[in-house]
Amino acid sequence: MDPINNGEEETSKKEISRCSIDVHKVAPPPQRSSFEKLKSRLKETFFPDDPLRQFKGQPSKRKWILAAQYAFPILQWGPNYSLSHFKSDVVSGLTIASLAIPQGISYAKLANLPPIVGLYSSFVPPLVYAVLGSSRDVAVGPVSIASLILGSMLSQQVSPAKDPLLFLQLGFSSTFFAGLTQASLGFLRLGFIIDYLSEATLVGFMAGAAIIVSLQQLKSLLGITHFTKQMGILPVLSSVFHRTTESMKRPKLFWVSAGMPLASVILSTIIVFALKAQNHGIDVVRILYIGKLEEGLNPPSWNMLHFRGEYLGLVIKTGLVTGIISLTEGIAVGRTFAALKSYRVDGNKEMMAIGIMNIIGSSTSCYVTTGSFSRSAVNHNAGAKTAVSNVVMSVTVMVTLLLLMPLFRFTPNVVLGAIIVTAVLGLIDLPAARRIWRIDKFDFLVMLASFFGVIFVSVQLGLAIAVGMSIFRMLLQMTRPTTMVLGNIPGTNLYTNLHHYKDAVSVPGFLILSIQAPINFANANYLKERIMRWMADYEADHITHHHQLQGIKQHSTTSLHYVILDMSCVSALDTTGVTLFKDLKKALECKGVELVLVNPIGEVIEKLERAESEAAGSIILRADLVYLTTAEAVAQLSSAINLKMMM
Amino acid sequence: MDPINNGEEETSKKEISRCSIDVHKVAPPPQRSSFEKLKSRLKETFFPDDPLRQFKGQPSKRKWILAAQYAFPILQWGPNYSLSHFKSDVVSGLTIASLAIPQGISYAKLANLPPIVGLYSSFVPPLVYAVLGSSRDVAVGPVSIASLILGSMLSQQVSPAKDPLLFLQLGFSSTFFAGLTQASLGFLRLGFIIDYLSEATLVGFMAGAAIIVSLQQLKSLLGITHFTKQMGILPVLSSVFHRTTESMKRPKLFWVSAGMPLASVILSTIIVFALKAQNHGIDVVRILYIGKLEEGLNPPSWNMLHFRGEYLGLVIKTGLVTGIISLTEGIAVGRTFAALKSYRVDGNKEMMAIGIMNIIGSSTSCYVTTGSFSRSAVNHNAGAKTAVSNVVMSVTVMVTLLLLMPLFRFTPNVVLGAIIVTAVLGLIDLPAARRIWRIDKFDFLVMLASFFGVIFVSVQLGLAIAVGMSIFRMLLQMTRPTTMVLGNIPGTNLYTNLHHYKDAVSVPGFLILSIQAPINFANANYLKERIMRWMADYEADHITHHHQLQGIKQHSTTSLHYVILDMSCVSALDTTGVTLFKDLKKALECKGVELVLVNPIGEVIEKLERAESEAAGSIILRADLVYLTTAEAVAQLSSAINLKMMM
Repeated sequence: MDPINNGEEETSKKEISRCSIDVHKVAPPPQRSSFEKLKSRLKETFFPDDPLRQFKGQPSKRKWILAAQYAFPILQWGPNYSLSHFKSDVVSGLTIASLAIPQGISYAKLANLPPIVGLYSSFVPPLVYAVLGSSRDVAVGPVSIASLILGSMLSQQVSPAKDPLLFLQLGFSSTFFAGLTQASLGFLRLGFIIDYLSEATLVGFMAGAAIIVSLQQLKSLLGITHFTKQMGILPVLSSVFHRTTESMKRPKLFWVSAGMPLASVILSTIIVFALKAQNHGIDVVRILYIGKLEEGLNPPSWNMLHFRGEYLGLVIKTGLVTGIISLTEGIAVGRTFAALKSYRVDGNKEMMAIGIMNIIGSSTSCYVTTGSFSRSAVNHNAGAKTAVSNVVMSVTVMVTLLLLMPLFRFTPNVVLGAIIVTAVLGLIDLPAARRIWRIDKFDFLVMLASFFGVIFVSVQLGLAIAVGMSIFRMLLQMTRPTTMVLGNIPGTNLYTNLHHYKDAVSVPGFLILSIQAPINFANANYLKERIMRWMADYEADHITHHHQLQGIKQHSTTSLHYVILDMSCVSALDTTGVTLFKDLKKALECKGVELVLVNPIGEVIEKLERAESEAAGSIILRADLVYLTTAEAVAQLSSAINLKMMM
Repeated sequence: MDPINNGEEETSKKEISRCSIDVHKVAPPPQRSSFEKLKSRLKETFFPDDPLRQFKGQPSKRKWILAAQYAFPILQWGPNYSLSHFKSDVVSGLTIASLAIPQGISYAKLANLPPIVGLYSSFVPPLVYAVLGSSRDVAVGPVSIASLILGSMLSQQVSPAKDPLLFLQLGFSSTFFAGLTQASLGFLRLGFIIDYLSEATLVGFMAGAAIIVSLQQLKSLLGITHFTKQMGILPVLSSVFHRTTESMKRPKLFWVSAGMPLASVILSTIIVFALKAQNHGIDVVRILYIGKLEEGLNPPSWNMLHFRGEYLGLVIKTGLVTGIISLTEGIAVGRTFAALKSYRVDGNKEMMAIGIMNIIGSSTSCYVTTGSFSRSAVNHNAGAKTAVSNVVMSVTVMVTLLLLMPLFRFTPNVVLGAIIVTAVLGLIDLPAARRIWRIDKFDFLVMLASFFGVIFVSVQLGLAIAVGMSIFRMLLQMTRPTTMVLGNIPGTNLYTNLHHYKDAVSVPGFLILSIQAPINFANANYLKERIMRWMADYEADHITHHHQLQGIKQHSTTSLHYVILDMSCVSALDTTGVTLFKDLKKALECKGVELVLVNPIGEVIEKLERAESEAAGSIILRADLVYLTTAEAVAQLSSAINLKMMM
């Protein structure tokens, strides 16, 4: 394909292109074997961040060091860890500990697990993460969402009140499978799966979950006895939303939000202790010592994991959902603060870290943990430098476990309930909702879907619906791709969207379309229909136009001679797509119109060539019907039209 | 946003752009309300072919006529129907009748229905289609695929041998629901759903179905008694595939393929009749007169339809699958010949026609019918001009029903079996398979999936798997969109794919990327990773380059100053996509690199503006960081770089 370069004709095209045009060849695509293509495709799919880049061209000894550092990020920052670092890490560590202890107890209650498990879970996992995790700001521990999901999903089949030991075992087992899910997602480089939980989905989901939790807690707070979601929801919602607005601001002055919970716990505990209130009907925490749970540090729990039996399905399902949701939170937190301090967090590696953390946790009496939004923010604001702040926190929790446990006997439940509610209400992100509404209406719909899905249907289904909607929209975009009509900006070589740029004018004799998506089975038929319609529009316009001009222009020049398809954006083509071009070619020939391609990418050229070598038909890739730019195509072809007219 | 237009500086950019550049504004998008957007979006989704175009600006009387013609295409060609038309329609009508009669009987057997139902189904539906259908070449009647699916799906729950009457009723009921499905798909303008059965899927599916049918028939042909698919399949496949190649050629000399079946039926019937062979153990057709089926024309059957009871689910499922598959064949046939003779077929209207045809059919003792590939081809080649050829065929069948039925008592089954096998083997399209393999390897996989799915799993699941794979691939394309690095072709304003065009060179100080897909939740994270990686590559290249040149270039000019994103192909943006730009902006600022956008479409501009009006952050749409073309951006900004360097 080598367009004839004909200089004379172009000089007459001044009105179309101001500066003279010489035609450039559309180069044949570089030769690559199917295997090479497959390889690069797989690389893009699974290693978009090219994690092994740093190893390239390094001496083998260095490679080993890098590998070790890659596996254990602690080796990266460990060596040059300074005293000043340590100081700020201690401060932030103690700060998040003061949050982690009350929240740990509360979230464990939320998951219908013995409160002490919440403390266990704030002791071991942080240590593991400090060694494996690559984020410097994430504060690890139990989180409200995961606790809620775990509790509610398991409660569907087992009553935590009737059979607490079994429930505890299932909790640990689910944690194991959650960890397994997370680790394998990371190991298989399938991290992108969590991207399908879009921002809209999560905003709606969190809010919905928050509502449910607060209602459950308000039940105990307000001491309501018979209280079903449906009946309670409408009256309570308003008040809830009212109180949200304050709790949105609070995170700003984080010292308060950091101090408050512990303060209230201590205060209330002292009061109860002093007044012996627990004997006067104030409901206080019972640190249940079920099974092997005793005072002191985490007892082993691997012998409590269920790998068979009737509940295997339940724990696997629970583990899957909890794992993915908590993973989403953890990764999001990591990415957020990494962006803030501009260091990189390898998503897939982070998933492995969190996964291993939970697998180990499940055999040391911990339930699902991940990076917590709220505590990480506090951690960051308190000036955390490295994962050492997690270690400090975990040590503080250890001390609590060893010495202070007995005191918690006097902590009133109502305080914990309050802590949970204030914590989860922070999950209702109204500004985000407003932003989503303003930017993208459909995303807002998705958000509502997951919000109401979670509240009125179920955690899993709510998410499923929202994700399904998002995917459906993508498919629709693919099925109905944009086709732009391009027009020339007089006195230039520019061709821009005719319906967006007022000063762009359509070139008589040409219909110039830009197709904005890969062409495949889902949209080939549509594109044919649509192009035909654009042609009909063109005819209509120019016939009326013709009438207006009282036949000053002769119809032959204004009538359609060429349909130019700007293929720059057609990033892929499948067999059905190839067929489209054949059909289109045929359909146009019947109308005496030529099909012209502009700037097709390598893959497209290749596939069209193959198709032609197959079937002897009208050739699409004819040299004089393929150009690199629209300007060149128009320049060349309009001179061709003029020649036709002269004859 | 109004880039400063500075003429002097550009004159120094000769090496980058030969003909002088003046900068054009990126126009703000035309104001459109959300409602207008929704409206046009819906129009594109459901009325891409703009069926009401012809009504525009017509006098109301004319509108009524057009409406009538739209509803009943017969009114379009009826008035100017000539004798010459009639002649050729009679010829072609008789030709397809000679195919329809034996095939009708055979396919009815294939569907485990009484053979006479096959003749009924070649009588009423063609008449209905002649009135409603808009294709001039389609020959309507029972088809092998639909018959196979109907038979096999119903047989899963009801034995045609044990309870033939019930089976017949279920057959009619399924036909009703098939018709309902088809009509409503058309009425709701959801025709595009059948596009999701891609060419690859269908080629594989047809071939698989053909194999199953032939095996079933060979069973009776070869008189094998105990014969399961799995055991028989491998030995038989080869011979089957061998015989295909001939049966591929046959359609060419269509008179043979048209005459053969009837000839063989008549001949064999006469022989059997003469030799009284039926008394000597030759198995002959039994026209079962179950229920109301008697000699003569179609008896009513609406009283046989099941709208409740235990089998409702079965018939609905069967109707859905059969309906969609037969619809696919019918529409494909219509489109093919419409393209050949260059007249339009309105897909959705055609669906309504086929749907109504089947609904009426279901209450006149007909089972699922549609436009048949093979017979339509014969019809076309025999010179059919209008749907009258269908009428002629139907009349011929009527005569047969009234007079010739008794003779069929002597037609040997083996002949019908042979007819079926030869017919269905024509469905194995090896050249298509080869073409798919050459053009697109993944499509070939899809084809294999549906082929083996149908053979070894089930009709529904085989299809489901294939469609699932095709959709998964689209999602993957969306999740991992192409990002091209653009380079300048020296002495021009052209910027083309650096890795495709050898003569393109990268512009020092700039990284120019073209993003080839809508940006949304599924790919935002990937794009960030990928862009960061391109930047790392740039740095790497230019540092080595720098060393090679022994520091002749000073590093400051070669180091990265601007990342230019060519947004021409970003046809949509969601909230997550907006966030990407914020993050990217931030990430680049840390490296002292500016983010430049080129030619963003209206929607993108709009959403970014909204996002900025929301959050006070670093502005993305800064006047001097948005350009209409890459050339202009480079020209302006490289002068900016030079200025920086001088200071």
